[in-house]
Amino acid sequence: MFSNLSAGALGLSLDHPTAVDLAVKHGFGGVDPDLAHFASLGGDAAIAEHAAAVREKGLAWGIAGLPVPLDGPAEAFRTALVELPATLALARAAGVDRMGTWVRPMHEDLDHRQNWRLHLSRLSIVAELLADAGIRLGLEYIGPKTFWSTERFPFIHGIREARELIAESGASNVGLILDSYHWYTAGESADDLAGLTDADIVSVDINDARSDRERDEQQDLDRRLPYATGVIDLEGFADAIAAAGYTGPVKVEPFMKELAEKPVDDVLADVSERIGRFTV
Amino acid sequence: MFSNLSAGALGLSLDHPTAVDLAVKHGFGGVDPDLAHFASLGGDAAIAEHAAAVREKGLAWGIAGLPVPLDGPAEAFRTALVELPATLALARAAGVDRMGTWVRPMHEDLDHRQNWRLHLSRLSIVAELLADAGIRLGLEYIGPKTFWSTERFPFIHGIREARELIAESGASNVGLILDSYHWYTAGESADDLAGLTDADIVSVDINDARSDRERDEQQDLDRRLPYATGVIDLEGFADAIAAAGYTGPVKVEPFMKELAEKPVDDVLADVSERIGRFTV
Amino acid sequence: MFSNLSAGALGLSLDHPTAVDLAVKHGFGGVDPDLAHFASLGGDAAIAEHAAAVREKGLAWGIAGLPVPLDGPAEAFRTALVELPATLALARAAGVDRMGTWVRPMHEDLDHRQNWRLHLSRLSIVAELLADAGIRLGLEYIGPKTFWSTERFPFIHGIREARELIAESGASNVGLILDSYHWYTAGESADDLAGLTDADIVSVDINDARSDRERDEQQDLDRRLPYATGVIDLEGFADAIAAAGYTGPVKVEPFMKELAEKPVDDVLADVSERIGRFTV
Amino acid sequence: MFSNLSAGALGLSLDHPTAVDLAVKHGFGGVDPDLAHFASLGGDAAIAEHAAAVREKGLAWGIAGLPVPLDGPAEAFRTALVELPATLALARAAGVDRMGTWVRPMHEDLDHRQNWRLHLSRLSIVAELLADAGIRLGLEYIGPKTFWSTERFPFIHGIREARELIAESGASNVGLILDSYHWYTAGESADDLAGLTDADIVSVDINDARSDRERDEQQDLDRRLPYATGVIDLEGFADAIAAAGYTGPVKVEPFMKELAEKPVDDVLADVSERIGRFTV
Repeated sequence: MFSNLSAGALGLSLDHPTAVDLAVKHGFGGVDPDLAHFASLGGDAAIAEHAAAVREKGLAWGIAGLPVPLDGPAEAFRTALVELPATLALARAAGVDRMGTWVRPMHEDLDHRQNWRLHLSRLSIVAELLADAGIRLGLEYIGPKTFWSTERFPFIHGIREARELIAESGASNVGLILDSYHWYTAGESADDLAGLTDADIVSVDINDARSDRERDEQQDLDRRLPYATGVIDLEGFADAIAAAGYTGPVKVEPFMKELAEKPVDDVLADVSERIGRFTV
Repeated sequence: MFSNLSAGALGLSLDHPTAVDLAVKHGFGGVDPDLAHFASLGGDAAIAEHAAAVREKGLAWGIAGLPVPLDGPAEAFRTALVELPATLALARAAGVDRMGTWVRPMHEDLDHRQNWRLHLSRLSIVAELLADAGIRLGLEYIGPKTFWSTERFPFIHGIREARELIAESGASNVGLILDSYHWYTAGESADDLAGLTDADIVSVDINDARSDRERDEQQDLDRRLPYATGVIDLEGFADAIAAAGYTGPVKVEPFMKELAEKPVDDVLADVSERIGRFTV
Repeated sequence: MFSNLSAGALGLSLDHPTAVDLAVKHGFGGVDPDLAHFASLGGDAAIAEHAAAVREKGLAWGIAGLPVPLDGPAEAFRTALVELPATLALARAAGVDRMGTWVRPMHEDLDHRQNWRLHLSRLSIVAELLADAGIRLGLEYIGPKTFWSTERFPFIHGIREARELIAESGASNVGLILDSYHWYTAGESADDLAGLTDADIVSVDINDARSDRERDEQQDLDRRLPYATGVIDLEGFADAIAAAGYTGPVKVEPFMKELAEKPVDDVLADVSERIGRFTV
Repeated sequence: MFSNLSAGALGLSLDHPTAVDLAVKHGFGGVDPDLAHFASLGGDAAIAEHAAAVREKGLAWGIAGLPVPLDGPAEAFRTALVELPATLALARAAGVDRMGTWVRPMHEDLDHRQNWRLHLSRLSIVAELLADAGIRLGLEYIGPKTFWSTERFPFIHGIREARELIAESGASNVGLILDSYHWYTAGESADDLAGLTDADIVSVDINDARSDRERDEQQDLDRRLPYATGVIDLEGFADAIAAAGYTGPVKVEPFMKELAEKPVDDVLADVSERIGRFTV
């Protein structure tokens, strides 16, 4: 696995060239791709040249966002499918091979079984289209009870259900986005990660949690930097990820607005060091 | 449909002969069977004689409890199956043709899909055994959020999921126990009852809710007598039940301990009158 | 229900205006829409004018083919979705409100459960897009064993499975295309049609079967005109369709090449008379 | 893995003591347990003594038959559950830890989905009861098309569906009985066995097929001894089983009546040698 600079996940507004430079400067092993930036480069050749230059700097690509909603009206899904090939073409041109999205852990109207069929139907189609483009899809489940319990029908909010959805999709290019924060808030342990292989994991997020809240009171958007409080057993999480032979990106996504107000070099030096503790 | 005296549901300790007499006295159309009492009568002939006498008084049988757990360890289920024929024989001897149970709306360990398969497996077997004995099975879903949100994995807590479980069981002798309290706390309306027929409903409970609490704050064991507060739209509920052509028992299950402290005749006169408003 | 002239189903090559005229001449109550012809008319206004003229002649629209594959590669499905709105617009402009397709009853590679999830995923999306356009979707199951047993993995080949797929789709605008030939070859009886309503049936085909073959030896593409041999219980089929309160089109689809070689007026007079025996 | 003498699978009528002696004589590594014989020994102590003596001779236990039907009426299932503890007690006393059964690959009345739910429901309960007794359950799928295509509704007839059923059961003590004959007739290859571990396999059968029949014409009860014709790729099968790290019994089940007419020592010497080619 390698440390990945995801400016968006840190709440930082960095243009892509700056993000690449800062990733190098602070010793990251990868950086998130920026498809909008790629689109501005003026063609596949220019994109490939850019990608080669990034690789030359010792950086691998992290993960791009999936531009297709897994729920919502069929017409929105259809429209996203119309536009998907153009996005996939940008990704292919740059050699990006991971995309990810998350699963909304509840629904105001669709019960668990209806929502399952909805997600399964969308996921199967999208996964096959991504497979055609040589891209893996990561699916992130959401753990906090303060999130999944807010509507009438809770949905997938743990690793077991996420893995079952992926298995039913029949797609071999779909895996998990594992976030220590969701793993912790879902009440899961290293046992729940046993048996995973590199093929089952598309991306890893590491975060810590506030120490002044019970697990079921933790908020999705109020986290701490990894190793900040020790609430989350990042050692156990790291051991399990390593045991899986994971080779992909590791990033931090703390949802701490104050990071944007600090000197960016300070933030990135700190984040890089924290991910370094995890990936060794 | 007919008003049914269920002493247990009212929190009253009445022996069976007394319950029968009071049901007649207060104009109920039926009374819950008491299988333990039947067992004490000394054989099928005596049970049949008793049942005939009850019928003679103008009373139909309400609904008996299902003596089989739909969740829990397989060994507990197996043991219940060993003992089930004796219970079914008592019911048959008396002409009882309805049994019911409820579905626990959450689980601390099994996720929605695992719990679904567990319930489906148990339900299918039990339903067929009851069908062999000419008995219908009623399944009650539980609506209050203060109940289903208390463990890691919420489960069936609305009519749609309950109906889907019944349909998947493939059993034609399984239907719903519809309780206005669950219907209300589940956020359902008359639309959710549209299309039901008498075959889909095994028993009906009518209750009202406290007026000083929001829907999502209502407690399962703290209800009000029907028409007490007007929080629950019992008119809409009654219209839908009537539109289904429902022919079975209607009872009250308010979980109000104070009822046991009042003169029983006062309580039953009041309850009978309230159900009478519903069944007309 | 009304008799419907479907030239394609009869193996006749009739241009749309001719089909309309012949439908009138031979007393049909409807005619299949021809979306390609509509597209040639030069705009929604012209299409609406044409549709009004057809209606004026006393004809209702039958059913159009669904231009989306329910199986096959995701990219083919995606492409079909890109093009679907244009087709739906033609249908809407003409007031066509029924589209249909059939389910391939076996697969060389996908087992029953994989194929189920594939069909469910595609069906859910397509059904919602059609619902947005005010169009109902009919699904035809295929009965002959000589068809479903030809590959490694048989799939839906009876009404029960077809209805379950439709129910799981969660779509209220999807129903069955009921063909007496599939009903017969599937070994089904009037009991299997009990409880159906008009909302469950989108189109009806009536055909008879060869009298010199056992049921399991019947070929999908070698049928007989309705009432030709009496092998199929068309009276029982008709009674069940009538009991459902069906209001839609009834057509004949005999796959008899010799029809194309006979005088078209002779063929249509005969077919119209045969459907007339059914729809009375 | 070890070679296992299963007299029943060879069509030989050997009493248990004789089977044990012959297993030793011909160099088998194990022998099938005979629960009826154990029951005749007069108590757990005697059974344990017998089992110790068999172990002392260098023999491990093969696999016992599961005395519970996975389909059929609920009452037959219930009765089997009533009697199951006694059988499990015999197995435990002897240290038997594998039981097995096969899945009927078609049904005259239940379609694939109904039959799936039936099997899943029975399997889940039985698996948990066996797990309580420390016993693993093997499930054998049936491959020949001449078998699964004989009724209206084909069911599980390949490894993928068998594995999915096992996964849905949620039981960690259920695995496959892999028979090279079913693997071959199901059109499967070594790829279909990739990724299996010892935990996924409860027993292995090796057989060959007639060389004068096409795969889809092979009959379930007309097989050949392993390596007899070379029709089945037993080398590829053996490599895949070895790659899984399989540690359990390997037996032969050729359904060749002529074996019972030959000198038993000749038959067993031959069978032992053939299994020996597989297990090296």
